[in-house]
Amino acid sequence: MFREFHALHHADAPLLLPNAWDFASAAALVEAGFEAIGTTSLGVAAAHGLPDGEGRTRTQTIELARRLADLPRPVTVDIESGFGGGPGEVAELAADLAAAGIAGINLEDELGDPARHQELIGAVKERVPDLFLNARTDTYWLGDDPSLADTIDRAKRYVAAGADGVFVPGMAADDDIRALRDAIDVPINILFQPGQRIEHLAELGVQRISTGSLLYRAALHAAVTTARSVRDGAALAPGIPAYSVVQDYAIGGRRRGSGGFQ
Amino acid sequence: MFREFHALHHADAPLLLPNAWDFASAAALVEAGFEAIGTTSLGVAAAHGLPDGEGRTRTQTIELARRLADLPRPVTVDIESGFGGGPGEVAELAADLAAAGIAGINLEDELGDPARHQELIGAVKERVPDLFLNARTDTYWLGDDPSLADTIDRAKRYVAAGADGVFVPGMAADDDIRALRDAIDVPINILFQPGQRIEHLAELGVQRISTGSLLYRAALHAAVTTARSVRDGAALAPGIPAYSVVQDYAIGGRRRGSGGFQ
Repeated sequence: MFREFHALHHADAPLLLPNAWDFASAAALVEAGFEAIGTTSLGVAAAHGLPDGEGRTRTQTIELARRLADLPRPVTVDIESGFGGGPGEVAELAADLAAAGIAGINLEDELGDPARHQELIGAVKERVPDLFLNARTDTYWLGDDPSLADTIDRAKRYVAAGADGVFVPGMAADDDIRALRDAIDVPINILFQPGQRIEHLAELGVQRISTGSLLYRAALHAAVTTARSVRDGAALAPGIPAYSVVQDYAIGGRRRGSGGFQ
Repeated sequence: MFREFHALHHADAPLLLPNAWDFASAAALVEAGFEAIGTTSLGVAAAHGLPDGEGRTRTQTIELARRLADLPRPVTVDIESGFGGGPGEVAELAADLAAAGIAGINLEDELGDPARHQELIGAVKERVPDLFLNARTDTYWLGDDPSLADTIDRAKRYVAAGADGVFVPGMAADDDIRALRDAIDVPINILFQPGQRIEHLAELGVQRISTGSLLYRAALHAAVTTARSVRDGAALAPGIPAYSVVQDYAIGGRRRGSGGFQ
């Protein structure tokens, strides 16, 4: 599973990683043929009425990860910046997730001291070398004035510390992506932005494309739109799966690798 | 809150009750102007990788209910058939939910002995008289050959035991609804079926219309459709809310009663 997930980052086409927020959404994405599944920290947080990015979803994230580990495809889990733990605690958490069957993690630097993030990365990789560690830097996500030079500096440090991949959500300009691509020799992960094309990102050298919170946001929108349609007597969107299909995700999601989500 | 929720069943128009599966979906529905929120047992079960209707989601349902109780609109919770408890345990659960701020519950008979269901209803109503108890009978939902006579007999028994409303998911024929309407004097709850019109159901005397698992199923469908669109380079559905909007549900969902979900 570790090997399979690593290999997906070095295939002919970039790994398109859809991010689920619960078991059924992950099972539905597996059923739809996606090769690996990620989690969305916004989805997990908002589903529980908690803010994203504040390290408050440790329990919920671990609980979800344990369930998703049953799926027949590799799963990578967003553990934010390690939920406030030091190197020992974050390495322990990573080891627990790997033991449960998780193939990879995202670990954010929250635009903090890069030396501290290197320590976290080093501790995790020493403890669980096979786990795919995607080092996320928030230079473009949290920074008001993103610096390409700072991003590349951080990326190099994280790779030196053992990161298997680098994730820069918010980076979208072709030149920035190319410069990062040229600076490091591990897979680059980009957060998909509406209007982007996979083929173009592939040409730029991107090897992994995440949907982040997009699918959860689309899900909430569909729920509200459907409720409004019922209220207003409007037609429902076509293709909504039957009760039995969703019921089957819970019991069948663990055994199937592909199929026909309608 | 109890009084407000009861009153929504006796307004000029039927109560259209959208069913949420997590905190953000409920907060989004409140934001969209719905007057009360229910839960979907399929959604709660599938979200946790558990089968629906087998009484296995007690912990998850209580946890969700406690969060939803913070919302500024009345919330009713589907507790299936009481998760296998006897009258004392189910009354205890109902009292806990009411104390947490929940306005109502659904309690299913699972097509079992109606005398046992009367006992459960009686125990709950004795313990928490103000909690809106919606007695669900599964004659049309689980039965291969639904009997209107059996449905009416059960409905009368449950009302006699103290039920505040009767829910018959799967009942859709005008004549059946009219017959049930004429037989009992508490609000009738119908599960919305695609193609039905609220105005018509109102004319038949229906006072509450639930969406059941529909919104969760629409949500999963939207998630998969969106992931496929990203993969295939297709345009995304319009109107997907921004990250900040969803983030705000988690922290703002507790304080707002209405607003502008985009």
